Amino acid sequence: MSTSRVRLSPEERRLQLLDLGARLFATRSVEEISIDVLAEEAGVSRGLLYHYFGGKQDFREAVIRHAVEDLVEQTAPPATGDPLERLATSVGVYVDYVIANLTGYRSLVRAAAGGSEDLRAIYEEARSALTDRIFREDSLGDHLHDDAATRLVIRGWSALVEEMVLTWAADPSVMSREALVDTLVGALPALTGVVSGDRPG
Amino acid sequence: MSTSRVRLSPEERRLQLLDLGARLFATRSVEEISIDVLAEEAGVSRGLLYHYFGGKQDFREAVIRHAVEDLVEQTAPPATGDPLERLATSVGVYVDYVIANLTGYRSLVRAAAGGSEDLRAIYEEARSALTDRIFREDSLGDHLHDDAATRLVIRGWSALVEEMVLTWAADPSVMSREALVDTLVGALPALTGVVSGDRPG
Repeated sequence: MSTSRVRLSPEERRLQLLDLGARLFATRSVEEISIDVLAEEAGVSRGLLYHYFGGKQDFREAVIRHAVEDLVEQTAPPATGDPLERLATSVGVYVDYVIANLTGYRSLVRAAAGGSEDLRAIYEEARSALTDRIFREDSLGDHLHDDAATRLVIRGWSALVEEMVLTWAADPSVMSREALVDTLVGALPALTGVVSGDRPG
Repeated sequence: MSTSRVRLSPEERRLQLLDLGARLFATRSVEEISIDVLAEEAGVSRGLLYHYFGGKQDFREAVIRHAVEDLVEQTAPPATGDPLERLATSVGVYVDYVIANLTGYRSLVRAAAGGSEDLRAIYEEARSALTDRIFREDSLGDHLHDDAATRLVIRGWSALVEEMVLTWAADPSVMSREALVDTLVGALPALTGVVSGDRPG
């Protein structure tokens, strides 16, 4: 921690500490993310962490929120290209993120599903951000109607993606990463095609 | 409780008590299912319930297992008919079950996801039973290969169904029950079509 002594603003210092904390997320469950663990792992003083983050609970939430924002940012599709190829890039990064952060990510999904209201809020925000982007980016071009029925199907698709990636990560011998990404991407127009079949015209 | 005094065997009596307990599941979360609540609601003595079920935890698990077995039994598709129509009957009953038992079912999904190992085991057993039946019943006829890749997709479809039905139940104005069932049923061949597109031949 003493190689470069660049003077950081409090905001930059807080961000640096959050980055360190988010790295714990790769191999620790949400319950294991704590000021004590980061202090020990990264050689940061507990006093400093309390100074920047207040209580233990605030620290945990800030770290998980940061890790999840990182996921949303990383999975941003490229600005141009074929819609489904852009979606494939985004889904591919999501798959890689889950593999790289399996312990933390799986525990977040479980904690959010299991009744922790604060974690559920963080998780739902990320999910909404990812879903809204699918409409904003118009990944499927003319195939995607932005209506309540399609949003319900996209929500179902998100659950399918999460379940398939977490199950696959536990046993990747089932199919290659490329076949997984292809299946997840192909599932979206297949599903929205089913619901649009319901419409007149 | 004194209208008919038919003499029941211990096994029949236990089943009768489980049926009473499973009714609590309609409007109570898994945490709220207890010997005390059943004793009060159904006018059964706590002593009798302890006699038949041992401890509080054993009672809760027995009731939830019974409710879930009931779900699996009720959703059995008709023995004959067009494969997708048989699946539609099954999915329709599932939708109705979730609506009728929304509080209990949603709390079970959350508790199972959230780290309660015993409840997760019950939930996973039910999920496997429902998934295995899709292959056994051959709902999709020749379209359904029983291989690891297809099983992964079916698991994804299960997650999609659960998410869509629970989300829809919170706001059924999005689409009719019939449109929901049609979408869920149509999603299965659409999804398995995507994964079989991955195969040679």
